[in-house]
Amino acid sequence: MTVATPEAVSPQALKSALNWRVAVKKFDPARRIPAAQWAALEEALTLAPSSYGLQPWKFFVVEDKALRAKLQPASWGQAQIVDADKLVVFAVKKDLGPDHVERFIERICEVRRMPKEALTQYRKMMLDSVSLEPARVQAWAIRQVYIALGVFLTSAAALGVDACPMEGIDKDQYDQILGLPAKGWNAVLVAAAGGRADDDAYAKLAKVRFDRHELIEIL
Amino acid sequence: MTVATPEAVSPQALKSALNWRVAVKKFDPARRIPAAQWAALEEALTLAPSSYGLQPWKFFVVEDKALRAKLQPASWGQAQIVDADKLVVFAVKKDLGPDHVERFIERICEVRRMPKEALTQYRKMMLDSVSLEPARVQAWAIRQVYIALGVFLTSAAALGVDACPMEGIDKDQYDQILGLPAKGWNAVLVAAAGGRADDDAYAKLAKVRFDRHELIEIL
Repeated sequence: MTVATPEAVSPQALKSALNWRVAVKKFDPARRIPAAQWAALEEALTLAPSSYGLQPWKFFVVEDKALRAKLQPASWGQAQIVDADKLVVFAVKKDLGPDHVERFIERICEVRRMPKEALTQYRKMMLDSVSLEPARVQAWAIRQVYIALGVFLTSAAALGVDACPMEGIDKDQYDQILGLPAKGWNAVLVAAAGGRADDDAYAKLAKVRFDRHELIEIL
Repeated sequence: MTVATPEAVSPQALKSALNWRVAVKKFDPARRIPAAQWAALEEALTLAPSSYGLQPWKFFVVEDKALRAKLQPASWGQAQIVDADKLVVFAVKKDLGPDHVERFIERICEVRRMPKEALTQYRKMMLDSVSLEPARVQAWAIRQVYIALGVFLTSAAALGVDACPMEGIDKDQYDQILGLPAKGWNAVLVAAAGGRADDDAYAKLAKVRFDRHELIEIL
């Protein structure tokens, strides 16, 4: 048997939440995420796993309505950008390199109260990883951001919060509108979160997945 | 207020599960995942979101102990490969192209009982996306696999099941040992799942994350 967390979620509750989840096309602008649920989603983002634990990311929550309005045309005009209660821009570290690794090593030493020398080997592995060809390092860092997206969407579903991931954004325009590169970041993708509109026709359609036996194979 | 699922998980329960989660370095080989929890994890994999809903992936669950033993040297010798109750190889569709799109369109028509003609625009968008430069299409498909990883790890944590994601595998060797390319797939990464050993020293260390205010910024 596995060691279960004190408040582990039942298999049925998890399946129910994941089957309820849809990529919401139409949010009800009047529906707000309760504060406790939003705080848990922010915590889920900060706790998302990444390679080496490097967290090569930052999450920008766009509250400013004027900024939201500017982002909509950079998002194929999709209404979720302005209608959803929250809009999270998932960003990746620009020029991920030794500076970020050193900052992380310092953070480990701070949290775990250990000397830097205890991390020599670990530090070297990370430095090697970020010293590869820049385009390769960037692609790797962007893949990590997609883990955080999976964590966010699953967490939202578990909490009964609606969400919609959006890859189809003009990243350069996002960068420009939000001033991300000057802060050291680049936009990767977006997730809107809030509550679905009662008349969201898409949300009522049957979920389409390939047959379980096409998706999972036992070897 | 958002519409909550009937059995929505409380913010406290989610936070507790995500804080409990660690990338387990040492599994207890005697600890097994209960059948209901594993079934829920398989369902979580099949329900994972992907761009367009295309599911450019397949999940190979390696039960064969001899195969596991062969995979260990292709995984930096990490013990999780053989000690964990379950080992899931996340694979991406090789040569993602029009065939996969057509198969998906047929599946939508089947599940939603709609004519193919109703999906003309959607089909065209997907065909355009998979007709870009092959390396670009492949990179995009691989990023989707990382969403599924995030879903799997979050779901496991919610259920109180331990897991460990592993990017550091020799993918070519995995492909060869498991015969994936002949089946149309390529290994991307691995997740082991089971129960942590009582003496896993890493699991007892404090979780290291950058400060919340460094990871999340309100705009």
